[in-house]
Amino acid sequence: MTDDARDAIMQATYEALCAEGYSDLTAQRIADRTEMSKGSLFYHYDSVDDLLASFIEYLLAGYGHRAEALDGFPPEERLAAYVEWWFDISTAEGTGHHTAMLELRAQAPYNELFQEKLRESDEALRDTLVDILTTGIETGAFVDHDPSTAADFLLGAFVGARVRHFTLGRATYSEHAYVATREYIETEILAPETTYPDEPAVTFPPDERFADTGDEQDAPDGAGQDDRTEAATADAASEHEDAE
Amino acid sequence: MTDDARDAIMQATYEALCAEGYSDLTAQRIADRTEMSKGSLFYHYDSVDDLLASFIEYLLAGYGHRAEALDGFPPEERLAAYVEWWFDISTAEGTGHHTAMLELRAQAPYNELFQEKLRESDEALRDTLVDILTTGIETGAFVDHDPSTAADFLLGAFVGARVRHFTLGRATYSEHAYVATREYIETEILAPETTYPDEPAVTFPPDERFADTGDEQDAPDGAGQDDRTEAATADAASEHEDAE
Repeated sequence: MTDDARDAIMQATYEALCAEGYSDLTAQRIADRTEMSKGSLFYHYDSVDDLLASFIEYLLAGYGHRAEALDGFPPEERLAAYVEWWFDISTAEGTGHHTAMLELRAQAPYNELFQEKLRESDEALRDTLVDILTTGIETGAFVDHDPSTAADFLLGAFVGARVRHFTLGRATYSEHAYVATREYIETEILAPETTYPDEPAVTFPPDERFADTGDEQDAPDGAGQDDRTEAATADAASEHEDAE
Repeated sequence: MTDDARDAIMQATYEALCAEGYSDLTAQRIADRTEMSKGSLFYHYDSVDDLLASFIEYLLAGYGHRAEALDGFPPEERLAAYVEWWFDISTAEGTGHHTAMLELRAQAPYNELFQEKLRESDEALRDTLVDILTTGIETGAFVDHDPSTAADFLLGAFVGARVRHFTLGRATYSEHAYVATREYIETEILAPETTYPDEPAVTFPPDERFADTGDEQDAPDGAGQDDRTEAATADAASEHEDAE
């Protein structure tokens, strides 16, 4: 398979996954978004799940390249860029993306291949954070602490905030978690003389390969999508009512 | 429907959900675990999803009663009981339960009824925590802080630790998150003179209605279950390798 063909399949998978979700995803719906037939998809992949496992791997390959953009910056700048990226809902992937990824996660206990690929993804995210924290302790920018426990606590808090936000449709839950995350970092991680950069000198870059895809709001698709948009709209109102 | 009939259906739904997961759940598989026919299930419920929405409501009704057990204890005892309950994997519901609940969560953005019921559940959990934190500030057991942001940060951290643990099969991620949660509570929540109770005076009680169900390890079922047990076993080894 050429790189271009692979990129086209991965792009189509991404679009279909964001628009249809995992449960309603079929090879036909992926093929419909490419120049290829369903048959030629199955020439390259054994099954839709096999294709999705390759897709998680493809996302991960993009991550490694992007994480390098933070290299060489002071640890507090890298940490701020990493945190802002997790919580920057406005420019980040939309509801369709996060929901689809959660569906894949929920399948992992039943699907060893998904689990293996998701472990690699999670480890890459974790390694970045552990490296930032370790470097900060070494340079004295951060207080002495256990980078492993702090990384698992923070990553859990990021994942959990995202899960609660998107499954319950409550952006305030992410907003609150972000405020408390910053307080945690300022009092438990940063050395007294280190300041959390309000405007980080570096930003975690987006995945350019999906740059043209846009949010699921722009996805061309049907019923499932409308349901989600309705839910999101109903939410925008209830979120404000909830705000404390 | 009599209370006994409803209990039997809910018990069967719980067992089937833990054993089969959401994706493979059918009305027949639920009916097989009761004295009822599939037809009589559909006399009471419009669809499997309707039944599952009632099931989330049923879990929630049990929660309210159990949360009352913490009432009247000092806030630090209530907080410790609440935290230990979230992290007490050994006596808590097993992998099948957590995985199934995550599958339901992942469906919420596509299913308004699930989302509504899951919001009610999450709000009940959140209300308990906000009440504990607010009471602690009032009595002086806790330092002054914003209970809403702390509650959303902590709930996110609990949910995220559980998601990472069960989807990736890595108990160490929960263990690390627990250690860091305690540190966070000790330095950011408890007043200097308040001690985190190592042996809480009160324990969050289990849901007695499911007491005989046991873990998914005891579930009688077939293929899906074996996959999960295998994954869990493979894990036990890799978790130790990972331990840092």
